[in-house]
Amino acid sequence: MLEKRLLVQAEGKKAYDIVIEDSFSNLAEELKKFDTDKRKICLVTERQVASWYLDTVYEIVEPVCKKVDIFIFQEGESSKNLNTVNQLYRFLIQHEFDRKDMLIALGGGVVGDLTGFAAATYLRGIDFVQVPTSLLSQVDSSIGGKTGVDFQSYKNMVGAFYMPKLVYINISTLKTLSDREFHSGLGEVIKHGLICDASYYKWVRDNKENILARDENALALVVEGSCRIKRAVVEEDPKEQGIRALLNFGHTFGHSIEKLMEFQLTHGECVAIGCILAAGMSRDRGYLTEAQYTEIKNLFQYFGFPKLPEELDSCEVINETRHDKKMAYGSIRFILLRELGKAEIFRDVTEEEMAAAFLSSGEQHL
Amino acid sequence: MLEKRLLVQAEGKKAYDIVIEDSFSNLAEELKKFDTDKRKICLVTERQVASWYLDTVYEIVEPVCKKVDIFIFQEGESSKNLNTVNQLYRFLIQHEFDRKDMLIALGGGVVGDLTGFAAATYLRGIDFVQVPTSLLSQVDSSIGGKTGVDFQSYKNMVGAFYMPKLVYINISTLKTLSDREFHSGLGEVIKHGLICDASYYKWVRDNKENILARDENALALVVEGSCRIKRAVVEEDPKEQGIRALLNFGHTFGHSIEKLMEFQLTHGECVAIGCILAAGMSRDRGYLTEAQYTEIKNLFQYFGFPKLPEELDSCEVINETRHDKKMAYGSIRFILLRELGKAEIFRDVTEEEMAAAFLSSGEQHL
Repeated sequence: MLEKRLLVQAEGKKAYDIVIEDSFSNLAEELKKFDTDKRKICLVTERQVASWYLDTVYEIVEPVCKKVDIFIFQEGESSKNLNTVNQLYRFLIQHEFDRKDMLIALGGGVVGDLTGFAAATYLRGIDFVQVPTSLLSQVDSSIGGKTGVDFQSYKNMVGAFYMPKLVYINISTLKTLSDREFHSGLGEVIKHGLICDASYYKWVRDNKENILARDENALALVVEGSCRIKRAVVEEDPKEQGIRALLNFGHTFGHSIEKLMEFQLTHGECVAIGCILAAGMSRDRGYLTEAQYTEIKNLFQYFGFPKLPEELDSCEVINETRHDKKMAYGSIRFILLRELGKAEIFRDVTEEEMAAAFLSSGEQHL
Repeated sequence: MLEKRLLVQAEGKKAYDIVIEDSFSNLAEELKKFDTDKRKICLVTERQVASWYLDTVYEIVEPVCKKVDIFIFQEGESSKNLNTVNQLYRFLIQHEFDRKDMLIALGGGVVGDLTGFAAATYLRGIDFVQVPTSLLSQVDSSIGGKTGVDFQSYKNMVGAFYMPKLVYINISTLKTLSDREFHSGLGEVIKHGLICDASYYKWVRDNKENILARDENALALVVEGSCRIKRAVVEEDPKEQGIRALLNFGHTFGHSIEKLMEFQLTHGECVAIGCILAAGMSRDRGYLTEAQYTEIKNLFQYFGFPKLPEELDSCEVINETRHDKKMAYGSIRFILLRELGKAEIFRDVTEEEMAAAFLSSGEQHL
């Protein structure tokens, strides 16, 4: 039976555990460590995840808590906004949640980010637990305390750094993901390797068949490997003032594409397209070989990632990057690969260089 | 010329300075320490304060910053909500504010709390500076990093702990406050003495004429004295998990009265009424003498605080306390004076005891 426990530290002190399991059954024991018998719990989830896992999780959580209330919202990025957060605030007030009570986020990145932001701001902060069910949230968004929602279609424009008390990962939930959702998370996995661990990248490349087939051993190794990388990065830079920004590899274009496509593509799909474009720019600068670039592109495509949608105009995408959070002192911070397994922040990237990447990737649409 | 600088620490490290001056002129030098020449500034204020100080502050800030934008909202507690925060987010997006830019809150507690919350959550946190102009904000709300807004008429229901980079206090702004606003802050001053410094309380009592006359020396000593007390409390307990809750003396009833009166009374007025009621409960328990209780009540009344409004029903007020944030594990945490200058949290306060306090204060209305 799989059991992994990774301790995440913040400023040299224990912050929280990431527990990797192959079922929900140990969630009860983990929660009891937080004196949940004295606390009300609000299980926050979305409709699709609720249909799969809510009953199971409720039955495990209910006996170890004072009371469990359930808040369900409509699935999808279009719910990740302040309206949903306000509905959750109202629900918590109606059910008299106080500072000692707790939220559990059961679902993918949207549920985790939104629940985390509500937890960060309700009564100036109450505890919350992440129970990520998608690959993307298990290897990325549930770890590191970034919470937030979209605002006026700008991604994560409003949010807070606020750490969970626990991240409980049940890898068996990966089996019920649609192919598209599953592939979406694999983009993050490739990205982790590309930006800071060439040997992990190579392991993913060499095991791509088993991973794509969702072999349980391969999944366990992917989740653990990516969690370790993500943990190392967020421990070194909890507030994204330095190295953590490297995780935004592919995001400058990714966010712009996501916004311009009005969220018809998943976050992971958009970031993957952004990663390929940024890898192309790294090749144009001579940091990667043509062969390395092609291999990266092929691996993303093997995992089912789409090409840049034809209806998008490269000028529009570039224009949109000006609103990106990764601006600093008015000049864009662009993340490129200095070599395979090593990303760096560059402040000298021009819009002409971005346009060239579209051209040389054969992705330009005018 | 007055100049006082109090360093506030958080977890043993320097967090920010409180600078107490008698003009705005040194604000430029203080801002330059934060490399403001490279940063956009958004001056956030409300109409009434803007009419007094915006021109002066703009002329001082503008030369030392990359660019200054101005966001003005309608004064008063009724603006302290997520709608105003959303308008501010939109303004910041339109003006392309990024993570390295900065907000300045120019005004009283409403401006400071709201601007601080926007700063805490815009792009997951940007820097902000407090320039409090009311007595209440100078001695209380600008210090300690509590930010937030009201939600569905619940006070400060949504917020964050987020520290300013600087608190710049110009005590000369106290001269333009209406008597009512000025008196409102004096309630906080009395409270600081009552809960943790009997000698400061006695100094305030013995200098009440000079304070009420807004004598400049008396004002400087009041602001400095209260800032020192507030600093000591927030340094020991930044997240209000222990001693900081003592600052909520008078707030359990205060918030309920404020809500039931639909904000026709100021926050300070409501808290003062709450302090007198809580002092009455302390006397009923034998913690204060009748003479001490009477002196406290008289001092609040000398500073112009109103009695409990006749239209309020004591049962309604007590009922409303059930929604108070100071609930923990479902039982109310009520702050009483163990003796003069020493507050404590009690968990054994009953609704009958609260009702008795109304009766014995001659304030019951049925």
